[in-house]
Amino acid sequence: MLVQTLKGFRDFLPPQARKRQFVINTLKSVFESYGFEPLETPALEYEEILTGKYGEEGDKLMYRFEDNGGRRVALRYDQTVPLSRVVAQYQNDLPLPFKRYQIQPVWRAENTQKGRFREFLQCDIDTAGTTSPIADAEILVIINDAFETLGFNNFTILVNDRTNFKNFSQKAITSIDKLKKIGRDAVIKELAAENMGAEELDNLIKSDMPSSLQTIVDNAKKLGVLDTRLVYEPTLARGLDYYTGIIIEVEIDGYTVGSVGGGGRYDNLIGMFANKTIPAVGFAFGFDRVMDAMDEKNLFPNTLSSAKVLVTIFSPDLLKESIEAAYKLRAEGIATELYVDQAAKMEKQLKYADDKKIPFALIIGPDEAKNQTFTLKNLESRKQTSCTFPELLSQIS
Amino acid sequence: MLVQTLKGFRDFLPPQARKRQFVINTLKSVFESYGFEPLETPALEYEEILTGKYGEEGDKLMYRFEDNGGRRVALRYDQTVPLSRVVAQYQNDLPLPFKRYQIQPVWRAENTQKGRFREFLQCDIDTAGTTSPIADAEILVIINDAFETLGFNNFTILVNDRTNFKNFSQKAITSIDKLKKIGRDAVIKELAAENMGAEELDNLIKSDMPSSLQTIVDNAKKLGVLDTRLVYEPTLARGLDYYTGIIIEVEIDGYTVGSVGGGGRYDNLIGMFANKTIPAVGFAFGFDRVMDAMDEKNLFPNTLSSAKVLVTIFSPDLLKESIEAAYKLRAEGIATELYVDQAAKMEKQLKYADDKKIPFALIIGPDEAKNQTFTLKNLESRKQTSCTFPELLSQIS
Repeated sequence: MLVQTLKGFRDFLPPQARKRQFVINTLKSVFESYGFEPLETPALEYEEILTGKYGEEGDKLMYRFEDNGGRRVALRYDQTVPLSRVVAQYQNDLPLPFKRYQIQPVWRAENTQKGRFREFLQCDIDTAGTTSPIADAEILVIINDAFETLGFNNFTILVNDRTNFKNFSQKAITSIDKLKKIGRDAVIKELAAENMGAEELDNLIKSDMPSSLQTIVDNAKKLGVLDTRLVYEPTLARGLDYYTGIIIEVEIDGYTVGSVGGGGRYDNLIGMFANKTIPAVGFAFGFDRVMDAMDEKNLFPNTLSSAKVLVTIFSPDLLKESIEAAYKLRAEGIATELYVDQAAKMEKQLKYADDKKIPFALIIGPDEAKNQTFTLKNLESRKQTSCTFPELLSQIS
Repeated sequence: MLVQTLKGFRDFLPPQARKRQFVINTLKSVFESYGFEPLETPALEYEEILTGKYGEEGDKLMYRFEDNGGRRVALRYDQTVPLSRVVAQYQNDLPLPFKRYQIQPVWRAENTQKGRFREFLQCDIDTAGTTSPIADAEILVIINDAFETLGFNNFTILVNDRTNFKNFSQKAITSIDKLKKIGRDAVIKELAAENMGAEELDNLIKSDMPSSLQTIVDNAKKLGVLDTRLVYEPTLARGLDYYTGIIIEVEIDGYTVGSVGGGGRYDNLIGMFANKTIPAVGFAFGFDRVMDAMDEKNLFPNTLSSAKVLVTIFSPDLLKESIEAAYKLRAEGIATELYVDQAAKMEKQLKYADDKKIPFALIIGPDEAKNQTFTLKNLESRKQTSCTFPELLSQIS
């Protein structure tokens, strides 16, 4: 038997899992500071809840099967359709507007040769149940706060309004959306098939910000978004035809893989199961891209280790002293790992601390035990110092 | 179309999702304070990795299907087999002993009439790669710390050692394991079929703690576990025949549904994919039972709300003042929700805060705007006070 993971699926070993937790926790704390609340939905849904909601491609890429009870089921494909189901199913229990965030994996049988994953985390914030432009502004503020809190300084929140495209066909919009990628000439060429051309494109590019968008942007600025970060881009369409108002995309300066998230207002989608209109505005953080950009910009804290100090065991007869030290350190609130193998060589124990990126190692040999002192080794500088317990505390914390 | 979730699957709306996060975050912080690190594995694995590892019942309850590429795949059924795969697959990259925690959902097509769920969170800690009794002691210490940190005061960590059963058949062990449930007489009756009886049972009950277990218990006490919490129970077997040393089960006083977690040493399992022996010891928290017991004992903080204060909007022409107040509060680090609908009646806005269990509401009407004051409503006591911004801060935080 081959011991392996499926193509497009990933294990996250501790160093990577810790980074993911750092980003997830940071985003959650930002979302919650604006009153957004967590929602969890099941990994499996009735197939009919999901099919037909993501176009032909979605139905093709969805993981679907018959369960042991003969039910047709499907794995979560995104978090918007489950949100729609939840809003319909619990309409009497959910205070509207419903501000929720959701951070769960989704599954898509993507072509892995394009570097795509078949299991990846989605990270969405949405406000459902209001057309208020303050809700739209708030999404911009949260985006700004989230990227700032993650440590990004130079990023751009591109905004547009769907009404700019009211005289364009869906095909024309799809062409214009590719402007950055394929260039002006190629877009104009494509527009010809839609009886449009340079004039329509240039008029669009020169168009003023619609007043509804201006209101949103003004409020976002009052709520703390830097003027320079909000950029009006009249050709931004984000492909999807379900947007009805603001369209949002975020780019990080110098990160060339692509945008790190997108969203907008979509007033005709969330109500699909409730048989009524439930307006909504939201944003999806591109989790893997954010992780990637954090790595590239070196934004992860240097020491994301679990423990602050490894208490080594000098020899089996000095185990008691090490156990006591570990207990005392933890009682002081210091994350402390006790090396578990009392027979291991000191060299092996220190290498273990290095491998786990634990910043300090504590050594209690016969002299230390006799004098009630501790030898503290800083594993970055490799320097050792002899110290009392209070001195130890002040050096570590 | 019926708008519903599958039997045995659950949505977690914000009040419940917040409680889950509280427990997860508490457990994670305890695990990490002992140097345990997070691991994530994929929801889907090759079927052959999982089948045959959980007995006949496991193969029957497992969600298995053929993916779009014709591969036989299965949904995660537990976290121990994936851990075994990971330890084998990355043996050159993982520092041993490998102390990992894993908190992910698993899927089992259980009979839902017994109140079982088909998707539920598992929450495991395991130390793989050492036979050291310090590792066993550490598991006991973490269990103790975890339940204490969650707020439980009266709980019992039952321990036993598998060697107590060396002269018993698997069938006899299964009978003895039911002692609490079916009583002494019924067990003796069952033991007769195995040529055993009252004498063997009573000898077992009277047996002293094996010295290897005594060493573990002594170290656990030195590391801070209260003497009275560790109870030797020589008949504890936990059904599973893969334990090779200590067996652990936790009971919460007054919580009668059942044990809230179990574990032990299992030295012959983790190496299954590595073709060598990789000793291990671990514990699985029964997440749903822990949640249930927390509810029953009223251990969740009263205000698990996302935001601390709701800034209401008195009227559209006073929107600016509310936006400014929200901005200033957040700048002070206070989780602040701005009500999004500037046209809503004050009554509706206050009800929204109540529904979301937000403890304070801020009102800025024409008088407040003129005098640069704020009306703060405590939504629990229903009392209103007029205050300046610094007074507001001290009342909220």
